[in-house]
Amino acid sequence: MNSLSKTQKEIRAFISERDWKKFHDPKNLALSVCIEAAELLEHFQWKNKAETEEYLKDRKNRAEVSDEIADVAMYLLELAQDLKIDLFEAIKIKINKNKIKYPVKKVKGRAVKYNKL
Amino acid sequence: MNSLSKTQKEIRAFISERDWKKFHDPKNLALSVCIEAAELLEHFQWKNKAETEEYLKDRKNRAEVSDEIADVAMYLLELAQDLKIDLFEAIKIKINKNKIKYPVKKVKGRAVKYNKL
Amino acid sequence: MNSLSKTQKEIRAFISERDWKKFHDPKNLALSVCIEAAELLEHFQWKNKAETEEYLKDRKNRAEVSDEIADVAMYLLELAQDLKIDLFEAIKIKINKNKIKYPVKKVKGRAVKYNKL
Amino acid sequence: MNSLSKTQKEIRAFISERDWKKFHDPKNLALSVCIEAAELLEHFQWKNKAETEEYLKDRKNRAEVSDEIADVAMYLLELAQDLKIDLFEAIKIKINKNKIKYPVKKVKGRAVKYNKL
Repeated sequence: MNSLSKTQKEIRAFISERDWKKFHDPKNLALSVCIEAAELLEHFQWKNKAETEEYLKDRKNRAEVSDEIADVAMYLLELAQDLKIDLFEAIKIKINKNKIKYPVKKVKGRAVKYNKL
Repeated sequence: MNSLSKTQKEIRAFISERDWKKFHDPKNLALSVCIEAAELLEHFQWKNKAETEEYLKDRKNRAEVSDEIADVAMYLLELAQDLKIDLFEAIKIKINKNKIKYPVKKVKGRAVKYNKL
Repeated sequence: MNSLSKTQKEIRAFISERDWKKFHDPKNLALSVCIEAAELLEHFQWKNKAETEEYLKDRKNRAEVSDEIADVAMYLLELAQDLKIDLFEAIKIKINKNKIKYPVKKVKGRAVKYNKL
Repeated sequence: MNSLSKTQKEIRAFISERDWKKFHDPKNLALSVCIEAAELLEHFQWKNKAETEEYLKDRKNRAEVSDEIADVAMYLLELAQDLKIDLFEAIKIKINKNKIKYPVKKVKGRAVKYNKL
């Protein structure tokens, strides 16, 4: 079993043991991804580049950021699983679209408008 | 190579070919996770449960949602990689914390306040 | 003096007394609007309509929601003031655009795609 | 009538003419504040301070940012109106709480952790 499906199984077990699945419809999951993404962003709220680097050197701060990244990822993985979307496959498809949308020659070194990854 | 590290390599290659790494500091990545999370949420904006289910039956809608999930994931994976955080390890750590914070006996079937996953 | 400009003066005084203006460039303000909007949303995270109504009957919950609305509004008003945008004028302009974009005959009773207000 | 209540009347008229009130429960409004806040943030996504200033000199860019500020404000004002919250009163209350939480002597010139406005 690869790590992705193992992780998704653990997420699902955690939720089902608590009988929380009934709350986790796609809209509530998407909304929760948003809420957790904002909590992640809060760590960088007033900081410039140098302050961000300094902040991230601290082990405790890094652990907190890691926890927020995990929170976003867990809701996202649960949503993907619900919709029977393979996350790595979805990323592959999107990168291929982005390669066509943002050809190297045209965008190299420039932040294109709404420079989507 | 497992799928996670392969995916992260592909993301990194896409960015480095375009010389976009200079824009992708942790703050900008966290902010971009937020923006993409909101675009994902937009698909569910005015829908109730039945409308959401109906919406997600359509192949084209599902592909669009899949693309938004990929967008959130790509910025998140890039941020994790930058901070040398293993995403699956981070999730494991967070689930273990959540197990202590939300014991089955106490929370089963109830949405606890700020019922974090 | 109308209430809007009086409120904006009080916000500005609070910030300038603390010498916080240096942190409040447009990007940081926009990012903070996002963070506070997510905190507002957190109050409704797992609730259906009936639970939301019940929740909002409680005086303490209402006060917390009111505080979150104020947080979003304060950053938004500060950003508007920085950009010399009159908020009520901006809303008037946007409603007029929306009237053209969403004619009553066409959209009445239907959630149009990305049914922007 | 002050400008706030006049603006809120115009927002309500726009919605009621389209029979959209049925979609605008508090949860959907809070979620829409979030979505629009992210669209506002998108204008600053990859920009540093100098690029942001340059961007905001352009009349067309400023009009787009103004429209996004209006979108956030409209949903927020509608939510406030629904909950019978006077926005300017809510801000006054929150500023008074913040004055106690962030005394000038303690925070002057420093970004306090989660430096809420």
